[in-house]
Amino acid sequence: MFQDSRINKVLYGGDYNPEQWPEEIWEEDMRLFKLAGIDEVTLNVFSWAALQPSEDTYNFEKLDKIMDLVEANGLKVFLATSTAAHPAWMAKRHPDILRTEFSGMKRKFGSRHNSCQNSPTYQKYSVLLAKKLAERYGERECVIGWHICNEYGGECYCENCEKQFRVWLKEKYGTIEEVNKAWDTSFWGHTFYDWDEIVLPNMLSEHFEPDRTTFQGISLDYRRFNSEGMLKCYQAEAAAIRSVVPDAKITTNLMGFYKPLDYQMWAKSMDFISWDNYPANEDPYSRIAMNHDLMRGIKGGQPFVLMEQTPSVTNWLAYNALKRPGVMRLWSYQAMAHGADAVLFFQMRCSIGACEKYHGAVIDHVGTENTRVFREISQLGKELQQLGDKTLGARSRAKAAILVDWDNWWAIEYSAGPSRDLKYLDEVFLYYRALEEQNYAVDIIGVEDDLEQYEVVTAPLLYMTKGNTDEKIRQFVKKGGTFITSYFSGIVDEHDLVITGGYPGKLRDILGIWVEESDALPRDKRNHFMYGGVSCEASLLCDLMHLEGARELASYEEDFYAGTPVITENSFGAGKAYYVGTRSSQEFYRMFMRERMEEKGISPVLEAPEGVEATERFKDGKGVMFVLNHNDEETVFVLNEARKDLLTGEQYEGGTVVTLEAKGVMLLEN
Amino acid sequence: MFQDSRINKVLYGGDYNPEQWPEEIWEEDMRLFKLAGIDEVTLNVFSWAALQPSEDTYNFEKLDKIMDLVEANGLKVFLATSTAAHPAWMAKRHPDILRTEFSGMKRKFGSRHNSCQNSPTYQKYSVLLAKKLAERYGERECVIGWHICNEYGGECYCENCEKQFRVWLKEKYGTIEEVNKAWDTSFWGHTFYDWDEIVLPNMLSEHFEPDRTTFQGISLDYRRFNSEGMLKCYQAEAAAIRSVVPDAKITTNLMGFYKPLDYQMWAKSMDFISWDNYPANEDPYSRIAMNHDLMRGIKGGQPFVLMEQTPSVTNWLAYNALKRPGVMRLWSYQAMAHGADAVLFFQMRCSIGACEKYHGAVIDHVGTENTRVFREISQLGKELQQLGDKTLGARSRAKAAILVDWDNWWAIEYSAGPSRDLKYLDEVFLYYRALEEQNYAVDIIGVEDDLEQYEVVTAPLLYMTKGNTDEKIRQFVKKGGTFITSYFSGIVDEHDLVITGGYPGKLRDILGIWVEESDALPRDKRNHFMYGGVSCEASLLCDLMHLEGARELASYEEDFYAGTPVITENSFGAGKAYYVGTRSSQEFYRMFMRERMEEKGISPVLEAPEGVEATERFKDGKGVMFVLNHNDEETVFVLNEARKDLLTGEQYEGGTVVTLEAKGVMLLEN
Amino acid sequence: MFQDSRINKVLYGGDYNPEQWPEEIWEEDMRLFKLAGIDEVTLNVFSWAALQPSEDTYNFEKLDKIMDLVEANGLKVFLATSTAAHPAWMAKRHPDILRTEFSGMKRKFGSRHNSCQNSPTYQKYSVLLAKKLAERYGERECVIGWHICNEYGGECYCENCEKQFRVWLKEKYGTIEEVNKAWDTSFWGHTFYDWDEIVLPNMLSEHFEPDRTTFQGISLDYRRFNSEGMLKCYQAEAAAIRSVVPDAKITTNLMGFYKPLDYQMWAKSMDFISWDNYPANEDPYSRIAMNHDLMRGIKGGQPFVLMEQTPSVTNWLAYNALKRPGVMRLWSYQAMAHGADAVLFFQMRCSIGACEKYHGAVIDHVGTENTRVFREISQLGKELQQLGDKTLGARSRAKAAILVDWDNWWAIEYSAGPSRDLKYLDEVFLYYRALEEQNYAVDIIGVEDDLEQYEVVTAPLLYMTKGNTDEKIRQFVKKGGTFITSYFSGIVDEHDLVITGGYPGKLRDILGIWVEESDALPRDKRNHFMYGGVSCEASLLCDLMHLEGARELASYEEDFYAGTPVITENSFGAGKAYYVGTRSSQEFYRMFMRERMEEKGISPVLEAPEGVEATERFKDGKGVMFVLNHNDEETVFVLNEARKDLLTGEQYEGGTVVTLEAKGVMLLEN
Repeated sequence: MFQDSRINKVLYGGDYNPEQWPEEIWEEDMRLFKLAGIDEVTLNVFSWAALQPSEDTYNFEKLDKIMDLVEANGLKVFLATSTAAHPAWMAKRHPDILRTEFSGMKRKFGSRHNSCQNSPTYQKYSVLLAKKLAERYGERECVIGWHICNEYGGECYCENCEKQFRVWLKEKYGTIEEVNKAWDTSFWGHTFYDWDEIVLPNMLSEHFEPDRTTFQGISLDYRRFNSEGMLKCYQAEAAAIRSVVPDAKITTNLMGFYKPLDYQMWAKSMDFISWDNYPANEDPYSRIAMNHDLMRGIKGGQPFVLMEQTPSVTNWLAYNALKRPGVMRLWSYQAMAHGADAVLFFQMRCSIGACEKYHGAVIDHVGTENTRVFREISQLGKELQQLGDKTLGARSRAKAAILVDWDNWWAIEYSAGPSRDLKYLDEVFLYYRALEEQNYAVDIIGVEDDLEQYEVVTAPLLYMTKGNTDEKIRQFVKKGGTFITSYFSGIVDEHDLVITGGYPGKLRDILGIWVEESDALPRDKRNHFMYGGVSCEASLLCDLMHLEGARELASYEEDFYAGTPVITENSFGAGKAYYVGTRSSQEFYRMFMRERMEEKGISPVLEAPEGVEATERFKDGKGVMFVLNHNDEETVFVLNEARKDLLTGEQYEGGTVVTLEAKGVMLLEN
Repeated sequence: MFQDSRINKVLYGGDYNPEQWPEEIWEEDMRLFKLAGIDEVTLNVFSWAALQPSEDTYNFEKLDKIMDLVEANGLKVFLATSTAAHPAWMAKRHPDILRTEFSGMKRKFGSRHNSCQNSPTYQKYSVLLAKKLAERYGERECVIGWHICNEYGGECYCENCEKQFRVWLKEKYGTIEEVNKAWDTSFWGHTFYDWDEIVLPNMLSEHFEPDRTTFQGISLDYRRFNSEGMLKCYQAEAAAIRSVVPDAKITTNLMGFYKPLDYQMWAKSMDFISWDNYPANEDPYSRIAMNHDLMRGIKGGQPFVLMEQTPSVTNWLAYNALKRPGVMRLWSYQAMAHGADAVLFFQMRCSIGACEKYHGAVIDHVGTENTRVFREISQLGKELQQLGDKTLGARSRAKAAILVDWDNWWAIEYSAGPSRDLKYLDEVFLYYRALEEQNYAVDIIGVEDDLEQYEVVTAPLLYMTKGNTDEKIRQFVKKGGTFITSYFSGIVDEHDLVITGGYPGKLRDILGIWVEESDALPRDKRNHFMYGGVSCEASLLCDLMHLEGARELASYEEDFYAGTPVITENSFGAGKAYYVGTRSSQEFYRMFMRERMEEKGISPVLEAPEGVEATERFKDGKGVMFVLNHNDEETVFVLNEARKDLLTGEQYEGGTVVTLEAKGVMLLEN
Repeated sequence: MFQDSRINKVLYGGDYNPEQWPEEIWEEDMRLFKLAGIDEVTLNVFSWAALQPSEDTYNFEKLDKIMDLVEANGLKVFLATSTAAHPAWMAKRHPDILRTEFSGMKRKFGSRHNSCQNSPTYQKYSVLLAKKLAERYGERECVIGWHICNEYGGECYCENCEKQFRVWLKEKYGTIEEVNKAWDTSFWGHTFYDWDEIVLPNMLSEHFEPDRTTFQGISLDYRRFNSEGMLKCYQAEAAAIRSVVPDAKITTNLMGFYKPLDYQMWAKSMDFISWDNYPANEDPYSRIAMNHDLMRGIKGGQPFVLMEQTPSVTNWLAYNALKRPGVMRLWSYQAMAHGADAVLFFQMRCSIGACEKYHGAVIDHVGTENTRVFREISQLGKELQQLGDKTLGARSRAKAAILVDWDNWWAIEYSAGPSRDLKYLDEVFLYYRALEEQNYAVDIIGVEDDLEQYEVVTAPLLYMTKGNTDEKIRQFVKKGGTFITSYFSGIVDEHDLVITGGYPGKLRDILGIWVEESDALPRDKRNHFMYGGVSCEASLLCDLMHLEGARELASYEEDFYAGTPVITENSFGAGKAYYVGTRSSQEFYRMFMRERMEEKGISPVLEAPEGVEATERFKDGKGVMFVLNHNDEETVFVLNEARKDLLTGEQYEGGTVVTLEAKGVMLLEN
């Protein structure tokens, strides 16, 4: 998060679309915002058609009025550029802006997130609009940040994208021979002799299902091309804004673990991270936390903006259950617990038409403050006012990290064999959850990040070891670090080409094992192993391995490979490298990871009962511990040192048995 | 049904395609028809290619022969216009006649119901053919009615339809500004500045699944446009026939609750209603009855023609089980019990090729009268001869009505949120079934129908209150009527725009409640409430409401809204308005609706055991009660007054305990 | 299999792609092949792009080197023509080579098996390449056979195919009137007046699902056209090779029961049969055997080549489990037991890129001989060397045959009604399995094959009786044969037109029954009958039949047809004809078929415990009995005569109780 003298508390507000309403209602909105403690609005998210009614005309009149209104009411503004849905006239006049689907069908005007990222029309007019907005509103006091486009996503397979893909490949590989090598085109006689022979990988060429391709290398490069292509759109708008407002703070709203876009690459171009958090009621709280930690991790631990969350219901789930009383508040504080310095909603006032009209809002269709949801919003608004800047800019301190990588994610889920149930995030979550639900502070980092600040680094399913990743891990372990990885790791290079000579490839020396075979288990089949005196299940994949210096911690109990190792530990330099050769159940990971943490003398933030989450953020030599009771019942925990509750003002001695109500929250300063 | 001096008994016959057979076999058909008591054939349903072999040529020779044949054998004829499948040559020569699919793919020649309703070619030649048929056969004594096209249905997304959609919109809305308002296009920047910017809503524009759209307003208008477009085709053919035969009785065969076409609108253009009844063996009998009652209801209670049913099996189900012995007869009488004055089959003789060759027929592939099915048909044929005109033109008398509306149906099932399991007919059927299976006479009516003739009107899921619907209901209740509706009612206007100010919108005063929130329950979750001393389940949606004058009849027992109302009763004027804030099980609706009927002093037609259906039709001051035993075992019931069995001639005293065999039928005249 | 003086043992090798590797590695391959007892390689399967880098250029340099290498190392070669994947440049330059999908979408370059069989470009260049290969390598001593294309399959719906379809129809039917008759186009007014009006049956015309069509006759003819079109491609390449190498032995690798291609027709054009065997671990061994027996049967019982099998895992299943220890050897011998004279693998060395990189290979990514899989391969290699020519050219002797027919298969699974669960192979397998798992020798034959050499012929689901099939059966039974068929038989002629006059049509006199109706049972419903003192279930379809001379062997126990016949026996001439009017469970078929065999005095090859398979192949007056223990435990059986174990050299007396280890194999010569 950026430091800004205009901001001295956690921002509170969200997407506001007064252009959907008659002006009479605007003043009522202002009254209600004040009641609710709202101090921010995100404006202009979907107004392109209104701002540019034709090729040569721009009309900012209404937006001027809206800016005057919110400024007069002391609201801060994230100003969006409106480029996530092009005008209908533009689609008609310049069909190059329309996307072509994975199926090969050319789209027509409709929906949103509908522009081809390589469309010259889109590139021209989106940048022009961003610039005009910067020129017109860049000087406004109320504008504290810029919000480009909205939830970038999707992909395009049009002819123009095909041409751009060839350009991208030429830049990346230089020669067609290098392309052939990277894609291993001698297989199935795919040799390309000319750039123009290359076509986009979709259902009409290499794919037979969205995630099933005959050439992983091509599909993988398309994913990179697609993510980078959208990033270029973002960068171009950002540059246009910066050309007018050099110190503009620019972001776009991300979506947590969103597979199509490599957010670790995107983060480098973003001034601050913002994201939209839309969990389902039944998601484990640690699954939400994993998204937050990713969003903090991609920008080196900087605080972020929670750009969107729903105050009550979503509308696009199959079953849109209400957020239970207290849950909106609980999840807002959870965001802050993991690094949020702003808590914003989608949306301020409920629209009356189209597909989001049943999505929750601060001001519901009834239009008054007399609703449960409004009351909960107001309560939180007051608390955030009272909290002030106590947590603004505060940072986490983790000794453990989980390493994730988009290329790796893409490559794993394109793999033809050994099992269709290989899902990267499932595996990552098993390890993350084991740490998070035991209240160990954990960062989520990428392969370009420094490992040296951590003591325990876990890289689940590190299938692809690109660049010097193996060497970074090697040095990290040599110097005393604990490294953990799993089955199906070390298999391929950055082109998804197998590293021959024995799995797990470049990690083999670090782990001290050779994996000869991998047995894929059908969904209903299990093997077992004993660990820590407990019988643990082995599922999905069972690696058959040989010890090459490592020590066996557990062995299979069944099938023809009964008695062979499944979990190993290798002493390597001053550190240790662990290999988990199968997928087990959550209980196993809990035990296993706790042992690794204890070996390194790392303590949890708080020892607390199941369902009680605790994190700590540090600032100016002080720590604020967030304690969040996700349970439906009240619970108790013991404070290990004296702390002051920032919400109630109450002062607790060390050793106090504290009671926290169901869905309750404490911010405890030391 | 029309009065016609030529008809003095329930018509008995069906679709007959002698053009598929050598002429040698025709005389054998006549012999078998006579044996079976057949007195009607529906001719010429799929003969366009034969009648018009090329652009400028017509050939009626074979049809002349067929007409001579059936006339000579004293058969009456519904003459079809053959326009449900265009000739192959026409598709080749005039591709504008081919439909474009929802996916955006242009179709080629094949299948049936394949013509674009906006195709100039189709419009020209279908009307021309209808006219030629009228000219040639209009004077024939045997022709008692006209059957246009066949089972109109489907939809088209071709360029021409797109242009016509714009024309239709211009007629409806006048200005593009009105369109923008109706569709709430300020949302997601969808503002249209020119009619030509509008595209059809399909998978290439606003939809992401057939029933999932980003702009409900657009999709809803497309449904209207599509239904009206096909209706125009019907009207144009009808006008052509009438221009030659002014007193022609014209129909097309409908399909019960067929979602794509607004039959309530269609009925206005039809001289009489005919429909095709194809239940599955496992359908509840009341589900079949609901279709019949709709078909009677859309034409103000007039008797209808059962245009098609299978004598034995269908061929297009996954598992085409035989109709059990007696069931064809039972279901034929059930049709009559609900208003049918004709009982017709598809088909008279089984075809030997293509996709319907395993569909049951009066004359099976074996070609003789020595089959179980033929024997059952003959028995029924004799009974209908004996019955004569006793039921012809007889009318039902219901004090209860269920209100259904196509716009409402469409809008509900396009809704993004709160639950994907909101299915209009499921809800309608819960209420209908509660009445029907307790043998209460019930009409199914539309929003344009008069409510005053009823005492209890139920409008389940009255999501959309268009036009003066709310005012009609208000007056109805004020004057003493009982009105019942459910959750997710009163939410939107005719454009699917939310009526702000609190749910259930315009019904709020009538119902005396305010619904603040609605909680969508996943499929496996239930809440509960006590009603009539019984624990009833609440599922799907749970409304959280406040009483504003209404009285709580039941409250939730679980979750954070335990203790808040779920069923309410509001005294309004001289009447009462009930709100059922959730979906419950059939047992609840049975209790609840019986209470409503008893409150109004309405009695069932007959108190009878489970599975025994009873309706009554009235004519010339007399009533014929149909008693239908859908059970697999014989059953008994008590007659409340003296009645004569029209099939056996037996006279029963009032109070007689009557035994009815399994699948048995009685027509009891008073 | 061909006799070839160069071959004196079971060939052992497989697909080898050295072009994917640097030359340094080739010598290592040779060393490992020798270690493993490999004596064959299949070369050049996917090298078109390498061999023909542009329209006018051919480059055989690398292939020359490879040929030199393998020749120098004494390896025999199946030389492939590389035409299963066209070059990218060809797709770009000649888009006519690209297929159009069933959906109507035109494909782009990608994947394999991607050429339109009617493409002039494909036809020209595939034949030219085959010829050039023949010219260059035809004289090579090492080339023992030619492998055209690879796993022919799929289909195309492009405009050119549409034109060719019309040509094909014209050749077949002569006049458009005959087409109309064959397709019964008077149904739904489909009459064609000109060839050009005919379009291909796909999702844009007659189909609404891949296997659901409105005109079975059209779809059936398309299937024939498609199979024959690909066969023509095969024939054209074969002719090109033969024009250069007149005595070339030519094959293509088939895929067992592969529905799209009529292999019985194909076999006539193949010098020898080769096929690819890729069972799943959980397949019953008799299901694998059924494929082998088909592959032997389509070429009149001649031995075949097992062209591909995986040494360990596949990569394209959802869950690619390892072949358990011993299973590769067991299944290799099973292939030989059913007629294989060669045991080949896909593949010799694992590729490092693209979609088959995790498919098992003789040489795995680790690149050494020190793997479980390599050790198992070497053991089998040694055994085959030791076995020599003992089984080469040996033939089976079966008295029982199962009759299968592709037209029949296609027609059944296009049928609209009576049940979607009618699956031809399911039914065939029930009967086949009953014989095979009791170790009765059985041939799988076609309708053109001679029945006279058999005593028991079973034709499950003989829905279509084309040509003189009924007369062949009639004569067969008259002369004393036992004939067995099932429900849904005798229904249609070769155009899928129903044979009127009563089911089962032309089989009615032979079977002595009339089937009046067929009741389709939903998946969860069962009827029952007593057979052999056991209660057997009836499912799927229940025929309701009348005896016309036949004797009832069992009758239904439930439903309204309880007491009517379900299994019948008819004495006809000197033989007997059996009808099984429903689908039952495997136990029933086991009993029923054993009785039929015993009636004819036919004995199994060996009486052995469950899971022990036995077949015998005969040569030079001697028999080699294969005994295969598919169980996971050792088992015992009793030898009925003196036999010598060809693998161990051990001599057993008649009556010996022999122990066979789990997954064990014996080849016992008498």
